[in-house]
Amino acid sequence: MANTVKIFDTTLRDGTQGEGISLSVEDKLKIAQKLDSLGVSYIEGGWPGSNNKDIEFFTRVKDLKLQHAKITAFGSTRRKETLPENDVNLNRILEVGVSVATIFGKSWDFHVHKAIQTTLEENLAMIYDSVKYLKSNGLEVIYDAEHFFDGYKNNPDYALATITKAQEAGADWVVLCDTNGGTLPHEISAIVTKVKQTLAVPIGIHAHNDCELGVANSLAAVMAGAEQVQGTINGYGERCGNANLCSIIPNLQLKLKYNVIEEQQLASLTKVARYVGEIANMHMPVNQPYVGAAAFAHKGGIHVSAILRNSSTYEHIVPEQVGNKQRVLVSELAGQSNLLFKAQELGLEFDTNNEQTKLLIEQIKQMEHEGYQFEGADATLELLIRSAYGKLEDIFTLESFKIIVGKSETHPVSSEAIVKIRIHGHTEYNAAEGNGPVNALDNALRKCLVKYYPGIQDMHLVDYKVRVLDEKDTTAAKVRVLIETTDFHSTWSTVGVSENVIEASWMALSDSFRYALLGRTPSGALPEEQKERLGVINH
Amino acid sequence: MANTVKIFDTTLRDGTQGEGISLSVEDKLKIAQKLDSLGVSYIEGGWPGSNNKDIEFFTRVKDLKLQHAKITAFGSTRRKETLPENDVNLNRILEVGVSVATIFGKSWDFHVHKAIQTTLEENLAMIYDSVKYLKSNGLEVIYDAEHFFDGYKNNPDYALATITKAQEAGADWVVLCDTNGGTLPHEISAIVTKVKQTLAVPIGIHAHNDCELGVANSLAAVMAGAEQVQGTINGYGERCGNANLCSIIPNLQLKLKYNVIEEQQLASLTKVARYVGEIANMHMPVNQPYVGAAAFAHKGGIHVSAILRNSSTYEHIVPEQVGNKQRVLVSELAGQSNLLFKAQELGLEFDTNNEQTKLLIEQIKQMEHEGYQFEGADATLELLIRSAYGKLEDIFTLESFKIIVGKSETHPVSSEAIVKIRIHGHTEYNAAEGNGPVNALDNALRKCLVKYYPGIQDMHLVDYKVRVLDEKDTTAAKVRVLIETTDFHSTWSTVGVSENVIEASWMALSDSFRYALLGRTPSGALPEEQKERLGVINH
Repeated sequence: MANTVKIFDTTLRDGTQGEGISLSVEDKLKIAQKLDSLGVSYIEGGWPGSNNKDIEFFTRVKDLKLQHAKITAFGSTRRKETLPENDVNLNRILEVGVSVATIFGKSWDFHVHKAIQTTLEENLAMIYDSVKYLKSNGLEVIYDAEHFFDGYKNNPDYALATITKAQEAGADWVVLCDTNGGTLPHEISAIVTKVKQTLAVPIGIHAHNDCELGVANSLAAVMAGAEQVQGTINGYGERCGNANLCSIIPNLQLKLKYNVIEEQQLASLTKVARYVGEIANMHMPVNQPYVGAAAFAHKGGIHVSAILRNSSTYEHIVPEQVGNKQRVLVSELAGQSNLLFKAQELGLEFDTNNEQTKLLIEQIKQMEHEGYQFEGADATLELLIRSAYGKLEDIFTLESFKIIVGKSETHPVSSEAIVKIRIHGHTEYNAAEGNGPVNALDNALRKCLVKYYPGIQDMHLVDYKVRVLDEKDTTAAKVRVLIETTDFHSTWSTVGVSENVIEASWMALSDSFRYALLGRTPSGALPEEQKERLGVINH
Repeated sequence: MANTVKIFDTTLRDGTQGEGISLSVEDKLKIAQKLDSLGVSYIEGGWPGSNNKDIEFFTRVKDLKLQHAKITAFGSTRRKETLPENDVNLNRILEVGVSVATIFGKSWDFHVHKAIQTTLEENLAMIYDSVKYLKSNGLEVIYDAEHFFDGYKNNPDYALATITKAQEAGADWVVLCDTNGGTLPHEISAIVTKVKQTLAVPIGIHAHNDCELGVANSLAAVMAGAEQVQGTINGYGERCGNANLCSIIPNLQLKLKYNVIEEQQLASLTKVARYVGEIANMHMPVNQPYVGAAAFAHKGGIHVSAILRNSSTYEHIVPEQVGNKQRVLVSELAGQSNLLFKAQELGLEFDTNNEQTKLLIEQIKQMEHEGYQFEGADATLELLIRSAYGKLEDIFTLESFKIIVGKSETHPVSSEAIVKIRIHGHTEYNAAEGNGPVNALDNALRKCLVKYYPGIQDMHLVDYKVRVLDEKDTTAAKVRVLIETTDFHSTWSTVGVSENVIEASWMALSDSFRYALLGRTPSGALPEEQKERLGVINH
């Protein structure tokens, strides 16, 4: 079918060139499995000629039995003045046993002279020989024309000659790369159109985001006839990143009506994006298009009123199409309609005219002024709303805690916590060690609670963030601690603010336990409807 | 001149709708001053009809004596079935004393029916009356056609009728808004072209980033004839943000050769972007195009080798044109050429063949494996390199520290630290309180050092970040602490990794002091060449 676009994912290769990204073989295998389930056509696993970690990946990925995606190995054309059969880099691609090879060569005359320092003729021979060698060994060959657009702008005839050579040697695909990310959509469109008039082989696009146009450039190329798009999950990659597949896929499929992946695969996009972000240990920007936590979040009071009337007035797609959902943020800007929405989500009767509501709004404004942020801490917000409406039974109260952390030349660092709470009419007093002060606090509080609520053994912290609020006040500044906790059924977030990182951590930690205990009966397991509720209101 | 584009900044209004963004009047005034120096034509200060904070801004901004930008106040067309002279919202715009009003009205018939619930005729009258009223009071009027593109796609005649009404009433500008951010560049291009054939008044574009196309859509509109671009610094704004002026301005000016701002103003873009990020207390994504710390950073060994040969081979513009600079990241992927580059920056002789260098590379790889990241911690990296080459005098060594943090029902939280170090043959032993444990440590260590180095009084922490490294290991997971310190001359970053947040903080804190003491003589001030060096190697 003419309007099918194949997705080539290079998160595991070009994506790892991004600042702060480093993936173990284990990480890469997990991501490959997710990419396969998302329905991409090609997964570029790494550069076997460049490092051993990548070789291990190619060996182990065979055991995964992927359903959909072909695994491809990356490499360059042969070195100048050698034979391809003597080229270690090309032979590594053959050795790792993939069915698809992706090799890059030079398109820009300037680079031929400056970077590889050879003649224009030798570069054409390098391209031809390398593609031919891989084809003669039975591989599907994707030829990545590095710097194609810069090369074309500088010397169109030579740039076209390089990809014509790749076609002559039998390449299955010619992929035009905007390696430096400096090309604009109208240029991409004109140059891809020209290439389509010159070549018969299917064309792909590989764009970077240096002008914040990686997605636009990919779309422009497809509209001019490209049938393969290379990119990465969340746009990871060197400098400003590669073209972001998490935006390209829904744009192509939902807006331009190309066949890319299945409908139910598209509905897993948000989950896949966040999973890869977690594995890569990269913070997901809340404002990321389509898959970010704020992509369908509404803050302005006027918008929120309209959304309560009709959802489609302020949303460009139905969020569930990409597995995301609508969310309303609580903020001083928004007025009462946002809190109303939140309360409705919780199934609480919320009368904007009564005294309790007004006090609650004042309290939230005051806390926001002190540095609290509830946008990322739904569980703390729920506790506040429940408390205002008398719907919160305070299961435990703090009497005291103390933390001692010490280190010397002869002793490694140690952390101890002592916690004293009142619970169900008793005083519980426990000490615990930990790998750090927050862990020690967590352990000591757990010891106090677990004999009443054994079910809390299941819950554990999954993220712990500290933000200095007023940078002008040095180390004495206020800090905000955000804690994310999971119990396998769901995940919830809590917040604490203090000038003291330990106190802020205590606040967030104790809110997390309070939230987990909502609706629990002493010594009882988590009731079914509790699981349900947690699943609904958290994200 | 035909190829001049005016920039309309709405960071202070639409930008504050972004998740996590909240600006005080003081913040807004500081940002307004920076925007003026950047050379934008219009600064939208807020919505005086919506909140009092905005009214205070309009009063106080008059004292700033801006050189270049006009201040504009935002509002909506009159309410249905009222007279404009009785409309509180319109009168507030007059009362705050601006010379430019920006009002929005409905273009989409669906919204007229569903959101404001009136007739199509009344909506046209609302637009006409409101523009006319503001014009008759002597204001320049910018008419923002909300949801214009969605409206046009649904009912082109009605959408065109609404902006024709604004023109008839005397609007100075008609700005076409892609309010939901769902429109693609080729649609923007076609619709703006159509509008240009219909209207004589100058056209502007207001795009959002929901499809990751905010920048592309703004460029497409300009190329189709729009002469004003509305957007925000760093693309702040509701959901996925507004169109990002930090990418639009250099794209228009450097790539498309429009007249936008002066050359030296463009060279301040990175500084302005980071300043606004700091005031808004928003983390700057390192991969942000043009102005991000990684926008011209190179990690792959192959690229770095090429850059050492010729800088322009892998950069689409000269980074200094937008006030940014080239940077080379150290990483296990990159091999020796990156470390070589770093050492050259430090002015160290770096022989890749000697034993020291090989040991250093092994040490860095091992530390990266343990969770260190040097990409954001240049000062720690410099200490390691200096240490490997015997160029680091270790001024102090730790004997022990202890931290005690306590809180009870009757006592607020308290933090104490005891630090014992050896320095210049003496043992220094000091205790200090602090607003938190890290602050207490900082204070106690300072007490030990200050009598030898009084100059360290100048330095203070500006950022403190904690990252949980292996989320699967609960609160016992390893954490990485990044500390950023300034001494007014420059800023440097250090890193520590441990399972214990206090120990990791101690590592980063003590590295920060060690770095600050480099080249200092006891009781001496910072030598001039030290300031110079710090200025060069930090970013």
